[in-house]
Amino acid sequence: MTSADIAAADTSRVFHSWSAQGSLAPLAIAGGEGSTVWDHDGKRYLDFSSQLVFTNLGHQHPKVVAGIVEQVQQLATIAPAHANEARAKAAELILDRAPEGFDKVFLTNGGADANENAIRMARLVTGRDKVISRYRSYHGNTGAAIVATGDWRRVPNEFARGHVHVFGPYLYRSEFWATTPEEESARALHHLERVIQAEGPQSVAAILLETIPGTAGVLMPPPGYLAGVREIADRYGVILILDEVMAGFARTGEWFALDAFDVRPDLITFAKGVNSGYVPVGGVIISEPISAAFDERVFPGGLTYSGHPLAAASIVANLTAMAEEGVVEHARQIGTDVLGPGLEALADKHDVIGEVRGTGVFWAVELVADRGSREPLAAADMGRLKGDLTQAGLLPFIADNRLHVVPPAVVTADEVAQGLEIIDGALSRL
Amino acid sequence: MTSADIAAADTSRVFHSWSAQGSLAPLAIAGGEGSTVWDHDGKRYLDFSSQLVFTNLGHQHPKVVAGIVEQVQQLATIAPAHANEARAKAAELILDRAPEGFDKVFLTNGGADANENAIRMARLVTGRDKVISRYRSYHGNTGAAIVATGDWRRVPNEFARGHVHVFGPYLYRSEFWATTPEEESARALHHLERVIQAEGPQSVAAILLETIPGTAGVLMPPPGYLAGVREIADRYGVILILDEVMAGFARTGEWFALDAFDVRPDLITFAKGVNSGYVPVGGVIISEPISAAFDERVFPGGLTYSGHPLAAASIVANLTAMAEEGVVEHARQIGTDVLGPGLEALADKHDVIGEVRGTGVFWAVELVADRGSREPLAAADMGRLKGDLTQAGLLPFIADNRLHVVPPAVVTADEVAQGLEIIDGALSRL
Repeated sequence: MTSADIAAADTSRVFHSWSAQGSLAPLAIAGGEGSTVWDHDGKRYLDFSSQLVFTNLGHQHPKVVAGIVEQVQQLATIAPAHANEARAKAAELILDRAPEGFDKVFLTNGGADANENAIRMARLVTGRDKVISRYRSYHGNTGAAIVATGDWRRVPNEFARGHVHVFGPYLYRSEFWATTPEEESARALHHLERVIQAEGPQSVAAILLETIPGTAGVLMPPPGYLAGVREIADRYGVILILDEVMAGFARTGEWFALDAFDVRPDLITFAKGVNSGYVPVGGVIISEPISAAFDERVFPGGLTYSGHPLAAASIVANLTAMAEEGVVEHARQIGTDVLGPGLEALADKHDVIGEVRGTGVFWAVELVADRGSREPLAAADMGRLKGDLTQAGLLPFIADNRLHVVPPAVVTADEVAQGLEIIDGALSRL
Repeated sequence: MTSADIAAADTSRVFHSWSAQGSLAPLAIAGGEGSTVWDHDGKRYLDFSSQLVFTNLGHQHPKVVAGIVEQVQQLATIAPAHANEARAKAAELILDRAPEGFDKVFLTNGGADANENAIRMARLVTGRDKVISRYRSYHGNTGAAIVATGDWRRVPNEFARGHVHVFGPYLYRSEFWATTPEEESARALHHLERVIQAEGPQSVAAILLETIPGTAGVLMPPPGYLAGVREIADRYGVILILDEVMAGFARTGEWFALDAFDVRPDLITFAKGVNSGYVPVGGVIISEPISAAFDERVFPGGLTYSGHPLAAASIVANLTAMAEEGVVEHARQIGTDVLGPGLEALADKHDVIGEVRGTGVFWAVELVADRGSREPLAAADMGRLKGDLTQAGLLPFIADNRLHVVPPAVVTADEVAQGLEIIDGALSRL
């Protein structure tokens, strides 16, 4: 079958995420290796998207493939209530990489239900209701199943209320009339604290933040911001949840993005990079006081595939391979020495680039119609850029007016050079 | 390592669903085959739980294991936006088994987000808000991530409101003072229609029902009930969603539980049996008018692992094996000829059994302190029964005062006889 045949078979029967179904023209991917994928016609693409920013260890890593094969041949699946060797080992390896003070892992199917369960824990532990998060954020797409449920499991979980949103720091498009990173940081903290005061601190259970907002634009926290959030959380007895679904596990050149900042959350949510997406999985890393709060009290949350052995085995293999091969350090070095400087060089050359932000293999290139006004490049231009890059053999990650440059953490300097050349050409043609 | 070592390693680091964490004593399962699993000490158990009612094809079916191995060696993972051969094939096989008039499949990570997306579709297509479901039901445990999200994807999804619950038919514990199945059915339909009228029909988007409520007690729909719900839905322009997460794919001796009833829903949600849980997956089967409604309009929902190739390959292998081996017909015959009569014989012998209900390999045995008053057996007795059955080598599924007898659909007549003998012994000791 050709790629066109498979794309037609797919779109005739498969309903696609976040799309109008009548205008789909998906690439049919046949295979991959490292930072490259290929379609059924043999055309190769440099994957500068890591799909949806999750193949951190690259495509078809032999150790992860082998780990999954071994587990599926031994025991593919088991209910969460039973114990399982791979699951215990996965939790151990995750905790080894987490900051001190975390002692349990709750495994879910992905990032959305990781955040669901972190919010549940925060609300039950504090006895408070509201969750504060940012407008520029994405935490998953679930919000109804438990309230549709009729049995007793609904009652302690009728939480889909009390969500309050604040603005976060984003100096390039400041909501606070700030002109320096320090000013942006201080004003964003002031705004957050004022909202907590105005909502009533006794009603606020949690602050939920992506450590570095990802799809929102790789918004690097300015100096002191995350430490300041921690202080505010402590001042009002609020649980701090850091969402590391996209930023964790080598993406930023750290095990966790938070490792580069002076902040210790109460709960960490993860998915994607933890196993490079080879099997659907996510989870919550739980600090000791929160896990202890459920030693005697029933945690009223769960899911059929929590701690799935196949997912657990892929976590074990992925984290082991990342450690053995120095992938975290590699991602950091690629960011500092190759990808960051390369993107800055493109910004010097192309007026359409308004700002370059990022770290490790986690970068956003903000494209503007005008550097002075910072007016975002039009959607039609972004669409053309996406088509042009794909045609030229690079899979891009496009969000609003931004090109996110997010290759696997194993991307080589040569591959970065090739990718930047393709981007350079496409920006020239734009 | 012994089972005790692994259980200790697990509970020291893994946070468990629906539990107090301080009193866990999980079985450490080392492997399985068909309807049997074994622990690390070599003790074997007849799996009459199908774990959480999902290993419909049994443990370690060689064709499903082979399908997963083949896919992981070719392409473990890909983003939902791309096309994938296994995914297209999985959708085709699911649609082949669905009733006429369904033309697309949206794949998710499990049953909860299947219901999330079915509710989203119903609300967007009708422009209405409320969802009616039953008190005795379970539809998944998510309810907050999208409202925590800050970006535009929140706005069309702020749906966690307007959930209304009704009583459903359950003659053994009727909420309607009914004395016959026909009366229970008619009164439950009257109640449902009155609630819709009282809520305001123009505000009701969907009726969401498990075709046969599962964890709630394998509550078989009485004559005319599901057809009557369909009529009511049509009368008020309401979308009918049937949740087949637990009941679908051979569990009831049908491909879908709804096949045994005179009802055609607008949306069907599934998970569990579709691939016997070998990889986390779920989804929505979409009827043509609803999928067409999103041809030009963007569907504002999605998830990173939608249409995951490994999950898709496991669906293809599982559904192919079920068809090749006549598993649906086998489950029906086992239910009719062996399991149903065997449970009825136990009810004749043991006064503690108040009622036996079910079909195929989907049965509930209601245990009562007194047959006259139908007072549920005490929780402590249920706990003793669970421990006794496990000790005797049978993994049970216990819910409230019920023993659910839910072996894999491949269970043999000999295994059913062994299992019933163990249950007989445990009930005698009770």
